[in-house]
Amino acid sequence: MSATLSPLAPKKYPKMPAIEGVRIATAEAGIKYKGRTDLLVMSFDAGTQIAGVFTRSRCPSAPVDFCRRNLGGGKARMLVVNSGNANAFTGRKGRESTELTADAAARAADCSPGDVFLASTGVIGEPLEASSFTHLLGDMVRQARPDQWTEAAQAIMTTDTYPKIATATVKIGGTDVTINGIAKGAGMIAPDMATMLSFVATDAPIAAPALQELLARGTAKTFNAVTVDSDTSTSDTLLLFATGAAARRGAPAITDAKDARLAAFRRALAKILKTLALQVVRDGEGARKQIEVTVTGAKSSRSAKRIALAIANSPLVKTAVAGEDANWGRVVMAVGKAGEPADRDLLSIWFGNNRLAHQGERDPAYSEEATSAYMKRDEIAIRAEVGIGRGKATVWTCDLTKEYVAINGDYRS
Amino acid sequence: MSATLSPLAPKKYPKMPAIEGVRIATAEAGIKYKGRTDLLVMSFDAGTQIAGVFTRSRCPSAPVDFCRRNLGGGKARMLVVNSGNANAFTGRKGRESTELTADAAARAADCSPGDVFLASTGVIGEPLEASSFTHLLGDMVRQARPDQWTEAAQAIMTTDTYPKIATATVKIGGTDVTINGIAKGAGMIAPDMATMLSFVATDAPIAAPALQELLARGTAKTFNAVTVDSDTSTSDTLLLFATGAAARRGAPAITDAKDARLAAFRRALAKILKTLALQVVRDGEGARKQIEVTVTGAKSSRSAKRIALAIANSPLVKTAVAGEDANWGRVVMAVGKAGEPADRDLLSIWFGNNRLAHQGERDPAYSEEATSAYMKRDEIAIRAEVGIGRGKATVWTCDLTKEYVAINGDYRS
Repeated sequence: MSATLSPLAPKKYPKMPAIEGVRIATAEAGIKYKGRTDLLVMSFDAGTQIAGVFTRSRCPSAPVDFCRRNLGGGKARMLVVNSGNANAFTGRKGRESTELTADAAARAADCSPGDVFLASTGVIGEPLEASSFTHLLGDMVRQARPDQWTEAAQAIMTTDTYPKIATATVKIGGTDVTINGIAKGAGMIAPDMATMLSFVATDAPIAAPALQELLARGTAKTFNAVTVDSDTSTSDTLLLFATGAAARRGAPAITDAKDARLAAFRRALAKILKTLALQVVRDGEGARKQIEVTVTGAKSSRSAKRIALAIANSPLVKTAVAGEDANWGRVVMAVGKAGEPADRDLLSIWFGNNRLAHQGERDPAYSEEATSAYMKRDEIAIRAEVGIGRGKATVWTCDLTKEYVAINGDYRS
Repeated sequence: MSATLSPLAPKKYPKMPAIEGVRIATAEAGIKYKGRTDLLVMSFDAGTQIAGVFTRSRCPSAPVDFCRRNLGGGKARMLVVNSGNANAFTGRKGRESTELTADAAARAADCSPGDVFLASTGVIGEPLEASSFTHLLGDMVRQARPDQWTEAAQAIMTTDTYPKIATATVKIGGTDVTINGIAKGAGMIAPDMATMLSFVATDAPIAAPALQELLARGTAKTFNAVTVDSDTSTSDTLLLFATGAAARRGAPAITDAKDARLAAFRRALAKILKTLALQVVRDGEGARKQIEVTVTGAKSSRSAKRIALAIANSPLVKTAVAGEDANWGRVVMAVGKAGEPADRDLLSIWFGNNRLAHQGERDPAYSEEATSAYMKRDEIAIRAEVGIGRGKATVWTCDLTKEYVAINGDYRS
């Protein structure tokens, strides 16, 4: 946790309702941090279904390997998350640590280790001593309560400057179901640094295969469309739990992600994932501005997303936004370097509603004054129209400031 | 040009000899900068052969398009380079500007516009008024002298803090031939910013097709193995001229790049390209340390280079080096994100001779003290042994400092 709140922090936070079938406890295990919670337990009613998506890193952390193995079972009874140590690049000891934790969690919740899910965030390469917190799990499960969502979001923070939470209530087949989500810090890794974790739960009765499809689809335009510094964590983990408790109130059991009764649920889930992903971007290390990059007119939506990420990951574009400079030449550069089909002489570029370049040249009608005023805003929208097709994509990032370099470079661990 | 010399600037510069058949002039055209030279002309004897490699950007500058068209002819009589304006993303006006410049240069040198080569560096998107300097070309050609190589390197600087020059003399078939090269600034673009330009000339009699093969091979492990911020300029240009004047002193005419008599020449050319490329990296915006990244044991050399570039372009690795932190966890992260075949549990990582991680775990024998002392050096070598094959590659970059952000973000153009 940082002493300085991000200027892009939410002005207000939602009150997080309970999710039937989910109980939460947090504790101060002192894994690395002192005087704050660093251990989170969620226990779930029997029958809870699970879906998950993970980092694409070829060097994933031990908990990511562990979760991937258990995901096939489709069922979850326990989630254990620690901050302060990522249990990544810890070899055989790392695997043993996940096994010890899962065994202790299974005993605490009276379930199988195959129903336990784990996540860790913090230092890379330091062995995680499971024994420093496994003795706490029994009491935590006993004391767990349904109303601890904000506390849960706080326990998993690392360099985050604020907890990230979102909630929505919608109907499935005439019955209210609720979705709650929490997330933590973006796009960095290693000593004292962050990784992206998010945990979402609902009381809707949705079977694991359908849940997995909903999550995978929901991630593409949310968590998979944000970037802070192009660096991929070893530990990124997004889990979605469905307790099914709303079935007792009449919600119909859903087994197909395309079920028409899911329309409102799908929209609400997408919104929660987007809200959490944007909160992550807005709390990117050193961030002072949110940048939304939209690419239109690309050869395909896949091509549009690649071009959008090339713009969003360009240090020169990000430093220009930090300097409140509508430097469209750097956007041209980023389109050019993406390696995707593009025709320089058809390209147009906007900052907000200010069109700065049109069909391969500076727009003679553009207003320096209006554009300068626009660049002072907290939220900057960049659009590049490629002019050769109908592919479209939007991604989000933050600016690159001296504070980013200070946070990541000004220390000796 | 910057007021502050890079701490990595060369301690001494070579004395640049003449290249028979090359005459050089520089001038203050006032294109953007005042009180310094910003225009370079090189004129070449009839019969001079040329080779070139260019940016891979899909949005190249007008001069890059122009050079690509003329390269097919294989002959060069004139090179005209300006700093202060990149003539990039300037549409029809940009093409007209290159044509006007080439016509004026052809008149000045009494040659065809097809024998003229052009390069521009500086602001993107501003029309380049060729008439602001074309009237100078006639006098420049008349006054051009063979001993102006360092002045040439100065005229093409933008945010460079020192001129980049290199020279070598070797034998082809018992006759001395000389190679001179100059270069300018790295990996940035747009207002007041840089792009990578390099011009190399020799008096060796080498035919254009062989020259092109030599240049393409020489570039792979030099200019194509350096990165400052992963951003690709619209304007990167590397041209190699061979006047053939050494033939008069008995040097044999070479038509095949594989000719055994070229052995020493090939090595010397590779060394000059590497020296210039490293000077560019060492003058990267805000750079305080040079970083050499070597990847061994990858599946192929292509795979090794991709992993090496993922490490070299990682903001987290670069800020860690700036902070003198041997943060090997971030190297693991970068290997993981490269998307290339890798096995976490076979990976080993060195900073200099200090092995920090071995086969997927922190190396228990590593000395924090020795590593900390190592990280204070100007030149940091990072090695990652992937452990699955024999692929090997080395790339070079610089650290990411607050000065980089200041240079690129702390201004309004």
